[in-house]
Amino acid sequence: MSKKLTVLCASAHPDDIELQCAGTLIRYVKEGHKVYMAIACTGNVGSKDHTGPEIEAIRAVEAQKGADVIGAELIMLGYKDADIWLDHPHWIKYVDLIRRTNPDVILTHDRDDYVHDHSNVGELVYRAAIWASVSNIPECKLAPIDHIPSVFYFETIGTTRVAPPDHYVDISQEFDQKMLAFRQHKSQHSDFLEKQFGVTDWFDALETTNKLRGFQCGCKYAEAFRVVQTWPNHKPYRLLPPVQFGSR
Amino acid sequence: MSKKLTVLCASAHPDDIELQCAGTLIRYVKEGHKVYMAIACTGNVGSKDHTGPEIEAIRAVEAQKGADVIGAELIMLGYKDADIWLDHPHWIKYVDLIRRTNPDVILTHDRDDYVHDHSNVGELVYRAAIWASVSNIPECKLAPIDHIPSVFYFETIGTTRVAPPDHYVDISQEFDQKMLAFRQHKSQHSDFLEKQFGVTDWFDALETTNKLRGFQCGCKYAEAFRVVQTWPNHKPYRLLPPVQFGSR
Amino acid sequence: MSKKLTVLCASAHPDDIELQCAGTLIRYVKEGHKVYMAIACTGNVGSKDHTGPEIEAIRAVEAQKGADVIGAELIMLGYKDADIWLDHPHWIKYVDLIRRTNPDVILTHDRDDYVHDHSNVGELVYRAAIWASVSNIPECKLAPIDHIPSVFYFETIGTTRVAPPDHYVDISQEFDQKMLAFRQHKSQHSDFLEKQFGVTDWFDALETTNKLRGFQCGCKYAEAFRVVQTWPNHKPYRLLPPVQFGSR
Amino acid sequence: MSKKLTVLCASAHPDDIELQCAGTLIRYVKEGHKVYMAIACTGNVGSKDHTGPEIEAIRAVEAQKGADVIGAELIMLGYKDADIWLDHPHWIKYVDLIRRTNPDVILTHDRDDYVHDHSNVGELVYRAAIWASVSNIPECKLAPIDHIPSVFYFETIGTTRVAPPDHYVDISQEFDQKMLAFRQHKSQHSDFLEKQFGVTDWFDALETTNKLRGFQCGCKYAEAFRVVQTWPNHKPYRLLPPVQFGSR
Amino acid sequence: MSKKLTVLCASAHPDDIELQCAGTLIRYVKEGHKVYMAIACTGNVGSKDHTGPEIEAIRAVEAQKGADVIGAELIMLGYKDADIWLDHPHWIKYVDLIRRTNPDVILTHDRDDYVHDHSNVGELVYRAAIWASVSNIPECKLAPIDHIPSVFYFETIGTTRVAPPDHYVDISQEFDQKMLAFRQHKSQHSDFLEKQFGVTDWFDALETTNKLRGFQCGCKYAEAFRVVQTWPNHKPYRLLPPVQFGSR
Amino acid sequence: MSKKLTVLCASAHPDDIELQCAGTLIRYVKEGHKVYMAIACTGNVGSKDHTGPEIEAIRAVEAQKGADVIGAELIMLGYKDADIWLDHPHWIKYVDLIRRTNPDVILTHDRDDYVHDHSNVGELVYRAAIWASVSNIPECKLAPIDHIPSVFYFETIGTTRVAPPDHYVDISQEFDQKMLAFRQHKSQHSDFLEKQFGVTDWFDALETTNKLRGFQCGCKYAEAFRVVQTWPNHKPYRLLPPVQFGSR
Repeated sequence: MSKKLTVLCASAHPDDIELQCAGTLIRYVKEGHKVYMAIACTGNVGSKDHTGPEIEAIRAVEAQKGADVIGAELIMLGYKDADIWLDHPHWIKYVDLIRRTNPDVILTHDRDDYVHDHSNVGELVYRAAIWASVSNIPECKLAPIDHIPSVFYFETIGTTRVAPPDHYVDISQEFDQKMLAFRQHKSQHSDFLEKQFGVTDWFDALETTNKLRGFQCGCKYAEAFRVVQTWPNHKPYRLLPPVQFGSR
Repeated sequence: MSKKLTVLCASAHPDDIELQCAGTLIRYVKEGHKVYMAIACTGNVGSKDHTGPEIEAIRAVEAQKGADVIGAELIMLGYKDADIWLDHPHWIKYVDLIRRTNPDVILTHDRDDYVHDHSNVGELVYRAAIWASVSNIPECKLAPIDHIPSVFYFETIGTTRVAPPDHYVDISQEFDQKMLAFRQHKSQHSDFLEKQFGVTDWFDALETTNKLRGFQCGCKYAEAFRVVQTWPNHKPYRLLPPVQFGSR
Repeated sequence: MSKKLTVLCASAHPDDIELQCAGTLIRYVKEGHKVYMAIACTGNVGSKDHTGPEIEAIRAVEAQKGADVIGAELIMLGYKDADIWLDHPHWIKYVDLIRRTNPDVILTHDRDDYVHDHSNVGELVYRAAIWASVSNIPECKLAPIDHIPSVFYFETIGTTRVAPPDHYVDISQEFDQKMLAFRQHKSQHSDFLEKQFGVTDWFDALETTNKLRGFQCGCKYAEAFRVVQTWPNHKPYRLLPPVQFGSR
Repeated sequence: MSKKLTVLCASAHPDDIELQCAGTLIRYVKEGHKVYMAIACTGNVGSKDHTGPEIEAIRAVEAQKGADVIGAELIMLGYKDADIWLDHPHWIKYVDLIRRTNPDVILTHDRDDYVHDHSNVGELVYRAAIWASVSNIPECKLAPIDHIPSVFYFETIGTTRVAPPDHYVDISQEFDQKMLAFRQHKSQHSDFLEKQFGVTDWFDALETTNKLRGFQCGCKYAEAFRVVQTWPNHKPYRLLPPVQFGSR
Repeated sequence: MSKKLTVLCASAHPDDIELQCAGTLIRYVKEGHKVYMAIACTGNVGSKDHTGPEIEAIRAVEAQKGADVIGAELIMLGYKDADIWLDHPHWIKYVDLIRRTNPDVILTHDRDDYVHDHSNVGELVYRAAIWASVSNIPECKLAPIDHIPSVFYFETIGTTRVAPPDHYVDISQEFDQKMLAFRQHKSQHSDFLEKQFGVTDWFDALETTNKLRGFQCGCKYAEAFRVVQTWPNHKPYRLLPPVQFGSR
Repeated sequence: MSKKLTVLCASAHPDDIELQCAGTLIRYVKEGHKVYMAIACTGNVGSKDHTGPEIEAIRAVEAQKGADVIGAELIMLGYKDADIWLDHPHWIKYVDLIRRTNPDVILTHDRDDYVHDHSNVGELVYRAAIWASVSNIPECKLAPIDHIPSVFYFETIGTTRVAPPDHYVDISQEFDQKMLAFRQHKSQHSDFLEKQFGVTDWFDALETTNKLRGFQCGCKYAEAFRVVQTWPNHKPYRLLPPVQFGSR
């Protein structure tokens, strides 16, 4: 089918999307679909040298550059890092985000991700997707949309504690562009996380993950996803690239 | 054993219970047990044509009619739709609900249900059941009960994302009465959810689910449940109809 | 991509395929793909009134009629019912079946199906798919093919003991033709299995299952599948209808 | 309902049943049901001091004594220890065993048990249960029964690698009689397995397991079971003691 | 390696640690490691005879005595029982707790434990462990630590609803000392929980659990743990006793 | 403890071990433990250019070279590729293998590996480990050993369809030697499997897997394992390198 999709990718921090699913977003853009990137937090904890406000300003610029490389429209929600919890005000914010962007497909963090602002963004977005089409929610500022978007979880860092992926996207031709997008987040690629995470080269970590996913599904580089297994989320056609909207 | 049970069925919205486990409640009533239906939310989002207050009033009447068909005592908790979260005030409300109704058995939403006020009601009720017998909770208004009720999760809509059921109830003889109860919720059976959920005929959806569950366990219509697998919830006898309270 | 696929559907008994995935096969045929149906057993136990040889003859005719309605080429392997075990001669037979049909996609029984000739056919076919491209297998009569087909498990009867499906196929437009194919197996639709299985109307059981699967994925009737989660089986594009072979 | 059940308990070795589910069998007998104990193997490896034939003779006597304490009818199938595999002759043997005993309920080893003659007996019995009612199986000597018995897995030793139990039986009042039955297997209670298994006191191991199961479900001693989650095995009423056959 | 570890054991109530993992803590102490016990709640609901403030005072003394037997340093966080929820203030408290104690290893409640202040403490501690090394968290009072501690879940009461353990600690030689520590919590060992939980003898329940765990792993008494399966938590060496810090 | 272990690594084909766990074996050797490599099959299907006998001869030499690099003693069982099934003669062979090598630890294929001679070797070895210490097995040629070795599953190719690993081994310092061992299997590194598996560079595939496992557990290169979760297999101390035999 020739319908063009609207895709909302919702993450916790600047650079999460570039690390996990930028290749897929680039494929969406190449196929002519509209892509939004919604980043929950400012990234204020992402430095040992800068103050919170300083690093927030730096990362806002980096986030915009990353989105530009991908070809997506950037939305910053302005929360502080770590301060994302499952409560009504956060949830309302995500309902309105979905109403504003009106997506067909949502990509977000797995609810079993290792860090709580990741997993909570994933849970909030999923929970908002179910309700964005519902009338009469008192606190919402925008009108309901007319459908329920389908939600997929993207990769978790290290790929652990989650079931095997059920969908793969071949990003072999988009891998260089993905790397370029990731490279915009310069403030995050020094050694300030090395002792905690044991990672010295994030580019290598990213490439290793996408190579392994490619190996699993028979191509050079891939990104992996899990569809949320709830009603009425799972569709009888493919919403990830190559997209095939509608079952006929 | 001849002891009569008290059963508390706790759901999020008016009509959830009629859809998921009304047949089982009818069997409890037929066997002479006392049944409470506790509905958390007013159903204020359940319309595209009515305002929140209008639809709340309509649904309160429908809820009472549904409970009357089932033969259960209705309790409305008065929350707004979607505004059920895992926090202390909600939890206290459920502890007091359990103290007030003093149930032996609780039926509620699965904590992996597709929508958050469903799953949060399920989680809150379970968590309240464990504590309702405990003294000295500062905010509680009612005195502790003397035992811990057993909790079962009823069906999720679409039956997805949860493990296979471990208990079935044959509702072949109660199916018509269940349908009659469900039919009381007239405001919910127009086409206003058709585009979002792809469902045009909720009666058919209900019948399909109960037929499949019947097919799985060897009868015409059945409802399916999962016992909460925690201490000290699971008993060495059957608490679902046909009830067999006590192990001798 | 415009490549036409070859599809092998491998089941244990005549009528298994019509029950579980005929709608999907019909869609493959409609899209112009080649479909083989390979039935392991003669169906010799499928009667209380006929002798083994009599019912075998009847069911061979029914199987051909079913395949004709679907538009598939029929292959009968000639084993006796229940006599399918995981050993070398059975496996060699399936390697040669795959070499003879040279499929891109294989649909078969889940290895957790309720009955052992079902599950063993599923396991043998999967295990043969991995090896059909390998040289030097002493007992094989046919030359290796040049690739490894992807294997999907179709539905189990009653849909229990397996994880949720990860792929759906909308068969709303093919449902009547599927029913017609299933109807060819007249010898199986009397009441001779009623006491054991508690099923009086197999057409209703079939419709109920496909309706529930449709309800889960947002269409009228659907069939559900699980991809085998092993290397190198899972692909970054869709091989079930609507087919989208190749990732670009 | 007042129907009396026939129960078949199928294990690999003499003393398996006494260890795992004798308390439940005693309750069945107390309630007036008929119980068969079918032991696959002679127990020929169960000694370091005796030859195979010697220990076989000793254990045959012990098995009979154990069955007598339980009140069950003993059937010895005569296989050698460890020589139980998933093939046609073994399976036919179990189909005929089920036809001969005509059970309503079967208790057997979990297919994930730690040792292969345990798990293979469990798998064979389950697979035979599905087919015992089927006509025309060439190798069977006995006529088909008219229904499919329900199968439950009893405990695995050490209780590991399996999902949590979904059914419990309170054996507090039967525990002493169970111990007495277990005590009949004197040849197995010396220290000849101590180094391998690290167990010096099997009576203590048995008591510990049943105490923990009792703790989990709120009684002094219990035995735990898992129902086989396949069609058409799971029933909407309770078949374990206290038995409640039939759904009305 | 000879490095001495710092271990933080975080529980909800006084006596949780003594019940679940005191044997392991005693082994840590014996090996020369530093152990902290951080108890979230005062235990104010732990009595039917005393008022909240009275029982809080009693349990504070008992907690100190238990910690003394173990050889650990006690930290009381002062929350009320049951009032532990997943929100920002609770989380900040745990980040600062980890910064203050600077642990290499954390032992805590499983997030699937049966009661919510248990499971929420487990979730909060895990989520704080990931972030304790991060700069710029506005509300934190203490400076970041330089690494991410590894988190293990200890046993749940009754051992249900969780996957099998993946790590065991032999506490055969520490069992008596563990019992002595548990015995300090005298206020909890009367019969005031007997009706709810069906437990009359907590010492027996404790011994049964540790015996079963010992039976599973081949020693007399053991405690069981699950490592949190997320990045970067799981290490290629053993952090539980016998400790083997570092991979060379 | 200073006890030296004997380690048996059992695989299906020449080069499986080098690919999956050679780094761990090298660490065992470095720590002074004895290592056996037992290869079930000759590798006769591993070529498109050579006949079966030719490639068998070539691979026997390669296998010896690989074992030499690792420092292990090689045992070839001489089966044909793919012809490994779960039956009594194969099982007896593995019981005698374990009696001959008398291991403390066994590393082998996961029973959920993607190809059946892999998974069947894994299952046979595990099942033989349980019985190798048992007397009176009629067909065995060697005397029983006096203990039950612990079994670990090594990695599956592509790492899919299995639960997350529960043990990691850091092989950063052994990685080059592992690569050298793998490089001995020259006959397998041409492009003859490229079309089927989509792999052009096996060295890169190997490195990617070990890098990802290293990333997951905080080192440069790692190999991952799953302990078999059955009685009496799991021990309260570490048997993988760094080895820590015995719990004190």
